[in-house]
Amino acid sequence: MGLGKRTDYGDAKYAGVQVPFTGDVPATVEAYSLCGFDFVVTPLVRDNWRPPAPAVPENGSLPSPFNRDDCLYINSSQWANQVVGQVSDWIQPDSPDPAVRQQSVAALRHQLGWAAHLGLQAVVLPPPHRPARCPNYAQVLSQALQGLTHMALWLTVPLVISNQSEQDQQQGAQQGAQGQGRTEQNGGAGAAASPAGPGALDGWEAWHQVRAQCDHHNLLGAALLVGPTLPSAASLDRWRGESVKAVLLPTAVFTANKRGYPVLSKPHQELLAMFFKMGVQVVLTGEACHDVPPPAPPAPGAPAGAAVAVGPDGSPLGFSISNPGEAHPLRPYWDYLCFLFRRLEAVGEQERQEASYRDYLQVPLQPLQDNLESQTYETFEKDVQKYKLYEEAVYKALKDKLAAAAASSETSSPYDLPIASTSGRGSGRQHHHQTTHGSSSSPAAAAAAASGGGDGGPVVVLMVVGAGRGPLVRASMRAASRAGVRLRVYAVEKNPNAIVHIQQMLRSEGWEADVSIVSADMRHWQAPEPAEILVSELLGSFGDNELSPECLDGAQRFLAPGGISIPQSYTSYLAPATSHKLHHDVKSYKDLEHFETPYVVRLHRHHLLAATQPLFTFSHPNPSEPIDNSRYASVTFTRDPAAGAAVLHGFAGYFECSLYGDVLLSIHPPSHSENMFSWFPIFFPLREPVYVPAGAPVEMQMWRCCSAHKVWYEWAVTAPVAGPIHNVGGRSYWVGL
Amino acid sequence: MGLGKRTDYGDAKYAGVQVPFTGDVPATVEAYSLCGFDFVVTPLVRDNWRPPAPAVPENGSLPSPFNRDDCLYINSSQWANQVVGQVSDWIQPDSPDPAVRQQSVAALRHQLGWAAHLGLQAVVLPPPHRPARCPNYAQVLSQALQGLTHMALWLTVPLVISNQSEQDQQQGAQQGAQGQGRTEQNGGAGAAASPAGPGALDGWEAWHQVRAQCDHHNLLGAALLVGPTLPSAASLDRWRGESVKAVLLPTAVFTANKRGYPVLSKPHQELLAMFFKMGVQVVLTGEACHDVPPPAPPAPGAPAGAAVAVGPDGSPLGFSISNPGEAHPLRPYWDYLCFLFRRLEAVGEQERQEASYRDYLQVPLQPLQDNLESQTYETFEKDVQKYKLYEEAVYKALKDKLAAAAASSETSSPYDLPIASTSGRGSGRQHHHQTTHGSSSSPAAAAAAASGGGDGGPVVVLMVVGAGRGPLVRASMRAASRAGVRLRVYAVEKNPNAIVHIQQMLRSEGWEADVSIVSADMRHWQAPEPAEILVSELLGSFGDNELSPECLDGAQRFLAPGGISIPQSYTSYLAPATSHKLHHDVKSYKDLEHFETPYVVRLHRHHLLAATQPLFTFSHPNPSEPIDNSRYASVTFTRDPAAGAAVLHGFAGYFECSLYGDVLLSIHPPSHSENMFSWFPIFFPLREPVYVPAGAPVEMQMWRCCSAHKVWYEWAVTAPVAGPIHNVGGRSYWVGL
Repeated sequence: MGLGKRTDYGDAKYAGVQVPFTGDVPATVEAYSLCGFDFVVTPLVRDNWRPPAPAVPENGSLPSPFNRDDCLYINSSQWANQVVGQVSDWIQPDSPDPAVRQQSVAALRHQLGWAAHLGLQAVVLPPPHRPARCPNYAQVLSQALQGLTHMALWLTVPLVISNQSEQDQQQGAQQGAQGQGRTEQNGGAGAAASPAGPGALDGWEAWHQVRAQCDHHNLLGAALLVGPTLPSAASLDRWRGESVKAVLLPTAVFTANKRGYPVLSKPHQELLAMFFKMGVQVVLTGEACHDVPPPAPPAPGAPAGAAVAVGPDGSPLGFSISNPGEAHPLRPYWDYLCFLFRRLEAVGEQERQEASYRDYLQVPLQPLQDNLESQTYETFEKDVQKYKLYEEAVYKALKDKLAAAAASSETSSPYDLPIASTSGRGSGRQHHHQTTHGSSSSPAAAAAAASGGGDGGPVVVLMVVGAGRGPLVRASMRAASRAGVRLRVYAVEKNPNAIVHIQQMLRSEGWEADVSIVSADMRHWQAPEPAEILVSELLGSFGDNELSPECLDGAQRFLAPGGISIPQSYTSYLAPATSHKLHHDVKSYKDLEHFETPYVVRLHRHHLLAATQPLFTFSHPNPSEPIDNSRYASVTFTRDPAAGAAVLHGFAGYFECSLYGDVLLSIHPPSHSENMFSWFPIFFPLREPVYVPAGAPVEMQMWRCCSAHKVWYEWAVTAPVAGPIHNVGGRSYWVGL
Repeated sequence: MGLGKRTDYGDAKYAGVQVPFTGDVPATVEAYSLCGFDFVVTPLVRDNWRPPAPAVPENGSLPSPFNRDDCLYINSSQWANQVVGQVSDWIQPDSPDPAVRQQSVAALRHQLGWAAHLGLQAVVLPPPHRPARCPNYAQVLSQALQGLTHMALWLTVPLVISNQSEQDQQQGAQQGAQGQGRTEQNGGAGAAASPAGPGALDGWEAWHQVRAQCDHHNLLGAALLVGPTLPSAASLDRWRGESVKAVLLPTAVFTANKRGYPVLSKPHQELLAMFFKMGVQVVLTGEACHDVPPPAPPAPGAPAGAAVAVGPDGSPLGFSISNPGEAHPLRPYWDYLCFLFRRLEAVGEQERQEASYRDYLQVPLQPLQDNLESQTYETFEKDVQKYKLYEEAVYKALKDKLAAAAASSETSSPYDLPIASTSGRGSGRQHHHQTTHGSSSSPAAAAAAASGGGDGGPVVVLMVVGAGRGPLVRASMRAASRAGVRLRVYAVEKNPNAIVHIQQMLRSEGWEADVSIVSADMRHWQAPEPAEILVSELLGSFGDNELSPECLDGAQRFLAPGGISIPQSYTSYLAPATSHKLHHDVKSYKDLEHFETPYVVRLHRHHLLAATQPLFTFSHPNPSEPIDNSRYASVTFTRDPAAGAAVLHGFAGYFECSLYGDVLLSIHPPSHSENMFSWFPIFFPLREPVYVPAGAPVEMQMWRCCSAHKVWYEWAVTAPVAGPIHNVGGRSYWVGL
């Protein structure tokens, strides 16, 4: 029935429960469904079942059939949706004993085959018994994955693996990762600098071993087994980028609140919240082990178990059981999960709209090469916050111009003036003359130029380059109105289709006298007079990736000395990232090109291995002669050793832009402009995932390359190990000039 | 003119010389050609040439043309073959100074473009100035390589990089890696555990950084700069597997012998010999710097410079100069190189024949699935040594049988007997009956069976399974003759074409009465009587890879209790290997399949990262019930930290086989049977080269998997980092049953 009616956290609303072997699937599903759970996780065979003799079946011989009573039996596809199979926990494909090993491999193959036959959606696999050494386990899974088309394998991965004997580990896994903290020597990788604390192994290492051998197959996921002790938040964060399919939550991990109800510690609550937000399902495991008091009507206002017994609205949730007479012993746990799920903050409207774009690869726009569609402009224009920032930037620039003009008493030439005087009529005429080559230079614009500044106030020449359907014209006009400045605006736009919309706007706003429309490419247009302010919105997700530098270099020809470019400067930022989803999606194209293309992505299930580092900065106007927009940067990302090892799938990119003065426009997480949604981050993939040992720095090289007709990036990882340069010579991806 | 007339060491016979900038190529080539050198290495531009202003050319702008006097000018393609270009040594694409960096990048592009235009075969690149950090250098090379189709880039790699300031390194490189041993701090990778000794960087690390970023491009090679101090032999050995194109040998590295002639130290001689054998050319660099006495007729028997002045035949070589009057100052160096080259041991006939197979990938035979061609059999049969070993094994087995028979006084049943008595006629008849289903069961064979053992001596039943054209029949008959034992031989062969050859052999040898030909698959044939000895030659390069185990399991049905299989057992061996050539060749197929296929290869330019480890063993007869021929092994290869880091391209495989008792047949290097050439090693490639840090162990997993219709291997590297399992489920390569 779901943990709550809300739909904003995807699959996370469905909770499962691990139950003993059942001979009657419909009855079991029904029983737990009454208790609230949406699906059951149940053994595929009886605990004592072993592969029939010969104990060592010859490879290639047919596996012996199951006995009907020994195995999970589902005769209706409707139940298959509500049942997740569980592979026997005794299976040890990497046992040092060859007999155990062979029996384990045979049993594992047998059970996986049976689960696939039943059409189950997923199977939970026991944790590797030797976490640091599980090649045989990985090999059997790898072979099985080759034959699977839809059934997922959920490998149980204890978040923390206590460094104890294998026998104990087996029990621990069955009982829900109890028995932490013992320190018997087990050896193996991950023990050093373990983020799991002293005497414990990092469960992530076991996971990585298996999935690396399985070549990062998409049907292999992790079912994280939560223990009573949690690793550091930094190490938990790695799982955001991994293929986590479920969280296994043993009842033993719960504590009792004052009223005796099972509740979770604050860190456990935060862990669950994190996974709920990632859309990860919870599976309750183990028997009820809390003495819940007999149901009684909750006394209103009674002192409840602090954080847990009171809902977000302050009313006592009381864990009331709908049918007290039939109360299932696990019901209080389910009630508590419902409580945790329901009290998650509501997902904002914007994020909800962006949900369908989460971790979805988009090839960046090429606005210079292609003309955008009206709908694309419309989407951009919905970003009210962005244009408010532009308005503020223009406003501040105008105010500064006014102040400078006031400070300067004498004026001799309009070219020396911070603000063109109304006597600058000659330029106005010249403009009229020039714009005739623009197809949509309207008579109204000419009239505006002729009458411009007729009121005697100061007139500022402002050019919007890349005006699109006109939102920056609107923002500029508003700013001018606030500043009490009269503008002479040139709206330069190369897309003839977009201009029609500007014309319409000018007519409806009555701005025809103040705004001239110029249908031209800003790089080639001959401006009739110098501009004091140049406004543009040419930035891509990585700042310069839509060729803002090249466009503005071309446009700055008609900027007056001392003129202002809005934006003034912008800087790109990068961070190394884990994202199984994105790696898998890029890999699915099965070619080199897609691994050498940056993507615009609403990053969701991802983990940043380290804080971002600044990369390339561009400032406008650019006084260099000649201007060199090629760039190179080598950046080193240092990592917290306590966060453990991680896998690197690529780099997340952002930008931060100074529009004017302190008006910042940013999608860089530490400074992200509030409520602004025009840009998703950019993602630079890597051809092969890179294992990054705990504490090892990541070093990457990035080049912005320019040729006569295109601009492109090349990138490479040089530490912890040197890898190939991606997109050499722009062979796979470039932006056309 | 070549260092010698011998052709057995390939290109190594051609030596080059590094010369200053020349404005007259024909004259320069001619001058050095007179001195003996086959080609010159000369700067592409004058030393003081710099890219013309603008110092920072805008990317995409055309490079300024050279001035005719500033650059190497070749107006005839005939000279291009004798000239290798040298890129200016001042170039520092990774200089911390952006201006130097940009000028370096521009100059490097400029010079490479010019060299390609001239049609040079190769260009020598200066060593990275910052060996541990040269991403920009790598990026320019990577871009250049994209556009090259035949011109090779030879990156100068000092074997040892003294850990000094960059300025010093520059000079050191120009002067031939002098100035070793200074210990100024430079930092960077490779300093720790450097195989180059304390205070020195491992040149291999710089090489690896560059070529990894260049994605292991085949046109990028190393020109190894030899210094006065050499690193350890273990670290030098790594270069065997790398793409080494030339050895740069500075005159300053030579010492003077007692007579004042330039000679090399013993380690340097060994180094040169190693590269000569790999077919690597030597380039002499620097000015003559030894005071060679004026030419005088060498006094016969005069005490010469120990190891160097006396030829292998004891006669003084004397470094006589053909034209004393015109003697070039570098002539004594060239003479010495000639001396070193000429005294290399002659390549044996067998190795010479195999030269064309060196590092050439062959997909293993599938003798079970396919019938071999007569020519293939003929090639096999040429291996006299192999059949001598078989003869010896059969001889010893027969001797042991005789001894056992003598020890056993009472005989009751032929099945208990180590040797079938002559009264075993019934079996003979049965055989006659059975073999009628074989198409070539000749009347002669029946007659042989009828008359078998007529002389009353002991008769041993020996079956050759997979008789081919009969070489094992011949070896067995010879052994029997030596042992004084009469054999009743069944020659079982599934290829009906091969049988014709056996028939011919029996006729010419007069063995028709002793040998029955059975045209059948040994796995399905019903033998007329039990065999006491089963002889087969079903081994592949990896022992079991041509399905010897499966075939012999099938054939052992007709082995008498206590019967002997020749071979008795065999074990496969593996070692991690560097082989740029093989990696490149596999990669050239541009698909996954070829990376998941083992190849039979005459390994030549390869380096084993560690000693071999045993993998799978099979013994015959196999008493297990049921027989399981699947295998799994996890092997760890430990490495000498002093050997430095290395790159892993795959695994070299071998086998060792006990034919009978102490008769060993082996292609495992430590025990390789002398003069036996039937098997080349096997090579298991890896999809991606793996960087193995100095001292880090390599761990690999290998599975031999069996299904009803095929057998295949799967393999994976799990340390230093876990990688994907190759050939999952036999998807790319298998051997059909």
